[in-house]
Amino acid sequence: MAHNRVRTKPRRVSFQGERGAFSEQAAQAFFGRRIVTVPLQGFQDVFESVTNRKAGAAVIPIENSLFGSIHQNYDLLQRYDLKIIGEIKLRIVHCLLAMRGVRMRGIKRIYSHPQALGQCEEFLSRFKNLETVPAYDTAGAAKMIREHRDMEAAAIAGLQAARVYKLSVLRRNLESNHQNYTRFLVLARGEVRPKHNAKTSIIFSAKDIPGALFRALGVFALRDINLFKIESRPIAGKPWEYLFYLDFSGAHVDEVSRYALDHLSEISTSMKILGSYEHGITIKA
Amino acid sequence: MAHNRVRTKPRRVSFQGERGAFSEQAAQAFFGRRIVTVPLQGFQDVFESVTNRKAGAAVIPIENSLFGSIHQNYDLLQRYDLKIIGEIKLRIVHCLLAMRGVRMRGIKRIYSHPQALGQCEEFLSRFKNLETVPAYDTAGAAKMIREHRDMEAAAIAGLQAARVYKLSVLRRNLESNHQNYTRFLVLARGEVRPKHNAKTSIIFSAKDIPGALFRALGVFALRDINLFKIESRPIAGKPWEYLFYLDFSGAHVDEVSRYALDHLSEISTSMKILGSYEHGITIKA
Repeated sequence: MAHNRVRTKPRRVSFQGERGAFSEQAAQAFFGRRIVTVPLQGFQDVFESVTNRKAGAAVIPIENSLFGSIHQNYDLLQRYDLKIIGEIKLRIVHCLLAMRGVRMRGIKRIYSHPQALGQCEEFLSRFKNLETVPAYDTAGAAKMIREHRDMEAAAIAGLQAARVYKLSVLRRNLESNHQNYTRFLVLARGEVRPKHNAKTSIIFSAKDIPGALFRALGVFALRDINLFKIESRPIAGKPWEYLFYLDFSGAHVDEVSRYALDHLSEISTSMKILGSYEHGITIKA
Repeated sequence: MAHNRVRTKPRRVSFQGERGAFSEQAAQAFFGRRIVTVPLQGFQDVFESVTNRKAGAAVIPIENSLFGSIHQNYDLLQRYDLKIIGEIKLRIVHCLLAMRGVRMRGIKRIYSHPQALGQCEEFLSRFKNLETVPAYDTAGAAKMIREHRDMEAAAIAGLQAARVYKLSVLRRNLESNHQNYTRFLVLARGEVRPKHNAKTSIIFSAKDIPGALFRALGVFALRDINLFKIESRPIAGKPWEYLFYLDFSGAHVDEVSRYALDHLSEISTSMKILGSYEHGITIKA
């Protein structure tokens, strides 16, 4: 599964959450299993860890196919000077995890992150007598069951959490909608040069004039550069003005991209290149 | 403060949260104080209440100037057939509320919504010995203090919560960034016809071809129609495809808007008009 095309091969890769989190699995899928994964409490801690050289790279979730973008990470990409060096997509599979020996009918409570509980509503509705208890994290719910050796509870989390906390898997594929993917970005201090199948992420702010965004998109459309994603975020201190995050095809050093980015600089008030990297493959969690 | 221009004058107006929430204040600012405000637990309950005629209108937050859009409400606007009939912006002011007689030095814990605690970080950092405790809601934190007659705790919430729960205001303007506004939408079953200063909200999905979004924005730019906001949301079941939410100037029945919307229908796979309404005024919470 290791993603050999990226030259950067960090020893330590940080992620947000508890061990066993989907982000940790994404990190290992991208870099291989020899890396040391570093769990950190908040997303900002993750950005700090790479900036302060406590980790060589980081893996952060940026978007889920059902819930949308993780905006805090968009905001942190703007504030920190890290580069996006890769991308990986994980098909999210929720499992019911419990201590070994525990059976379905012995379970009284199910712990998980509220979003995961929501994603498994159909499954949960079949067990009306079960209490669902919100936890701060899916892997955190699994960790708690292991720590308390709780024989009356189960956690909804990924297979990685089952491995890490040595829990048995009572049920798989609990999620109602199987089109549940999370896209992760890989961050480092320096850039990579993607060899093929490249995409580039940028941030820009359009001038506050009619048609500004149309003109900005024209920079790409008029050069046949394909756009994959546009996301707007508020600018703190300037109510109802926005920053735009854009993913487009190609590397930023390609000739046509350079013309487009020069053109965009000309018509925008600020512009920042977050990095060029290869399109991520999709793996199953 | 009543917003007289809107003809619909409902008796019951629903909102999400506890009494004393900023949404309740927005409802009263928009419709005047004679309405009956109906607190409901979730945003979906609010959409249901208007659909099922248990309320004549609803007020929902759609966007905060620091944190961005409330995506759940964008998704609900797509799923339910309600119309946007108005807009109001509230300058968010956080206050420290406690039982009467409680002084600053008697406080051991501060309850509030995690986002509100985050917005008051600077203030809180001056009181290192205080424990901050996350609550599900700012007004809910105030309610809890009143219910338990807790003389050792304070809540961070709005002035409306102080009035509702009869708490005294120990400090005002706790927020670090005063450019903190929330924009609310007013929903009803039928449309209004805004007389002047109109804007229109729509949802559309662009065809999956290069330059599709550029062409869609061109529909407006080429007719000198100003855009205020664009927001993209994932389409459940179609990973990495998006719906776009767009606010533009003018009413949808205006001649130029009709041409633009016809043109947009022609080049998009789906299109829905959420309503035309007057630009909202800004009031202080």
